[in-house]
Amino acid sequence: MSPEERDRLRAEMINLLEAERQEELALRLEETHPTDIAALLRELGVEDRARVFRLLAQQQAGAVLHETDDQSLLELVRALDEDELTEILGRMPPDNAAAVVSDLPEAEAEKLLDLMEEEGAENVQELLKYGEKTAGRIMTPEFLAVYEETPVSQALDYLRKSADAESVFYLYVVDDHNHLVGVVPLRRLITADPSTPTRLICQREVLSVTPETDQEEVAGLVTKHNLLAVPVVSRENTLLGTITVDDVIDVIHEEATEDIQRLAGVAGDETVFDSPRAVFTKRLLWRFINLATAILAASVIGLFEESIQSLALLAVFMPIVASMGGIGTTQTATVVIRGIALGDMTRAHLWRVLKKELQLGLATGAVNGVVMMAIAYVWKGQFLLSFILGVALLFNMFVAAVVGVLIPMALKIFRVDPAIASSVIITTFTDVFGFFSFLGLATLLLRFLAP
Amino acid sequence: MSPEERDRLRAEMINLLEAERQEELALRLEETHPTDIAALLRELGVEDRARVFRLLAQQQAGAVLHETDDQSLLELVRALDEDELTEILGRMPPDNAAAVVSDLPEAEAEKLLDLMEEEGAENVQELLKYGEKTAGRIMTPEFLAVYEETPVSQALDYLRKSADAESVFYLYVVDDHNHLVGVVPLRRLITADPSTPTRLICQREVLSVTPETDQEEVAGLVTKHNLLAVPVVSRENTLLGTITVDDVIDVIHEEATEDIQRLAGVAGDETVFDSPRAVFTKRLLWRFINLATAILAASVIGLFEESIQSLALLAVFMPIVASMGGIGTTQTATVVIRGIALGDMTRAHLWRVLKKELQLGLATGAVNGVVMMAIAYVWKGQFLLSFILGVALLFNMFVAAVVGVLIPMALKIFRVDPAIASSVIITTFTDVFGFFSFLGLATLLLRFLAP
Repeated sequence: MSPEERDRLRAEMINLLEAERQEELALRLEETHPTDIAALLRELGVEDRARVFRLLAQQQAGAVLHETDDQSLLELVRALDEDELTEILGRMPPDNAAAVVSDLPEAEAEKLLDLMEEEGAENVQELLKYGEKTAGRIMTPEFLAVYEETPVSQALDYLRKSADAESVFYLYVVDDHNHLVGVVPLRRLITADPSTPTRLICQREVLSVTPETDQEEVAGLVTKHNLLAVPVVSRENTLLGTITVDDVIDVIHEEATEDIQRLAGVAGDETVFDSPRAVFTKRLLWRFINLATAILAASVIGLFEESIQSLALLAVFMPIVASMGGIGTTQTATVVIRGIALGDMTRAHLWRVLKKELQLGLATGAVNGVVMMAIAYVWKGQFLLSFILGVALLFNMFVAAVVGVLIPMALKIFRVDPAIASSVIITTFTDVFGFFSFLGLATLLLRFLAP
Repeated sequence: MSPEERDRLRAEMINLLEAERQEELALRLEETHPTDIAALLRELGVEDRARVFRLLAQQQAGAVLHETDDQSLLELVRALDEDELTEILGRMPPDNAAAVVSDLPEAEAEKLLDLMEEEGAENVQELLKYGEKTAGRIMTPEFLAVYEETPVSQALDYLRKSADAESVFYLYVVDDHNHLVGVVPLRRLITADPSTPTRLICQREVLSVTPETDQEEVAGLVTKHNLLAVPVVSRENTLLGTITVDDVIDVIHEEATEDIQRLAGVAGDETVFDSPRAVFTKRLLWRFINLATAILAASVIGLFEESIQSLALLAVFMPIVASMGGIGTTQTATVVIRGIALGDMTRAHLWRVLKKELQLGLATGAVNGVVMMAIAYVWKGQFLLSFILGVALLFNMFVAAVVGVLIPMALKIFRVDPAIASSVIITTFTDVFGFFSFLGLATLLLRFLAP
């Protein structure tokens, strides 16, 4: 649905709501995708939101809950009846229900879980035991598995009779201890002789993960091997669930968002729709870190206050040195951080990449330095000062290359997310070094500089 | 394969190469994933790279070519025999072969294509007709389709006999003009009565794209509807090919990389392994844009040179105003740009998000401003100057919120990638406005400020 179509549907929905033509609205909702409904609900006031939500069929309601952002979800949960909610949650695929519950504040989540247990939805509780962002949290405990001696014909019968499971791309094969033995792609099952035991047609080397595996690692595995689903097994190789490719796609989007936003000093899970209150402290945290680094840079300038007093022109050129150092580090660090996230950049490549960035930094720094020198000379007519500016700029590009490669790699080695080395942190080095070298050189040569 | 395993395998490979134990090496390579082989090849010199590559079986060689970065690919292509190459390309899935050819410089690409035509690989030529980053470029022209009156039993037979096609999740159903009529998921085919015509069991409402559809839109469709494959049809609804979920995952990674890197003033397709020469001009372009914006900021400072001359302390506080404005815009713009990329943020939400960011900017700005005022007062003992600093900081946060929301949205509306509004461009506003308000206020009140 294009943004324009969504806008049109929203207007139409609001009209139907106001005219109390609920049946028409229910029909209209039935043919709308849950993602679009979730987006539309966001636009409505709390009361209207609950009214519209109640018009949804139960299965669709579950899908909409799963697509709803944290803030709207909480408001919706508070506006709805607990019985309604627990019934909807109980009918959702357990991994999605777990995702919804874990998006709620603890008090709400616990209340719902207590009520759900009576409804027999222990599956959700089970999934919530695993840590956030692990395979256990995103797996579905529903899968199709047969005993290894089961003949193909019987496996096909089983497939025909089983209700619609979320993952229907592979049939898993287990031994009599429920240990994962192999996997049969659906297509191979169709093409095999009906009397063969599945044991003989299954692929024996199955890539699997444990519930503790990081979700980013699962995504890497699926990307690399073009899988449609990954089985999740216990340490004893017992089949616990599967992770399907659609859940992996959500993980890939989530991890990319996290990287992009962390680099900019924003929490990885913030969305445009979060309320100002919800993100206030997190935004402020990075602002204060930035304030600290800015004060550090300012105190370097403070060392040279006297030089500036006698030659205010220095202050005019200062932001150029800092700004060029800033883009230099940001360019290098971003390419390195993305390389790490995609699994391309490892310790083995450290020297090669560092050498490349140093060459690049010096080459681009030399060109930038000369151009800047020329501009500064034409602008202010001071040759020596322009020269100092050019040299400081070149020096700073050297620092940018070193810092931009080494800091993300060091964080990676100490198992910290390299994206935390956001521009806030990393440009502090070039700010401090840039001010120090520019103002330092100028102070040394101050008596040769025209006032 | 973990980085450590890869390092170990690399050492082992180099040993086997040096000892000329090629057969052992070939066996070792056979069980290694193409992605890992591509990463290993990158580590070798040009000659060794060609030697190792020649040890690969043809099908694996194709997969490795597809995974190889542009730089290594070009070196490899130059080192190899043209006959070897065209044969390997001819056996690759056409979409992958097209991707490899389009990664090469024009001269090399054309030479290979000329040779390939004789080998009957027109499919690749066909795909290359479509623009870069379109559905046509990533689709595979191989798919399974049956005529709508074909009974299920015959469709199953067809499935059994057809060679391994890349996409085997869905069977497409076409009418006698080859127009797409519907799709049958493999599982439904198994569970249906053998004599039913496929027409009666297929899903009629099929989501499809045209070859001209942007690949990001295809990825959005697959993400939203949890698809495993999307059919590509002509304007006349003739089935041309399919795009499978594994190709979509590659697109999602690619688009995320583009967003992350463009925000940092780096080309969307740069990798850590590109040679300094290959990226020099692109990096330099953003450096020069940055230089221009820095000179703009510097010239604002130039307007107040006299004030700085009489009170150098102003220069000390300047970077704080600029730096806080910088993080403010970057935080806001990044959340908005990511929201746009994920399809959450549309024009309809403009005022809501702007209001939120203004509230946030003023709230965080007030807190930051007061804290900064206190620090500045304790540090330098000048109350009025500290107050001006706090006010300028608050003003700048207001500008940051406005610019951070409006510029990405304006670019989106004019169909320019919002990520182009990288920090380089967008922080210029807060730099200029910040210096102007801080130095301007200080100049107005200069006679009240202690020297």
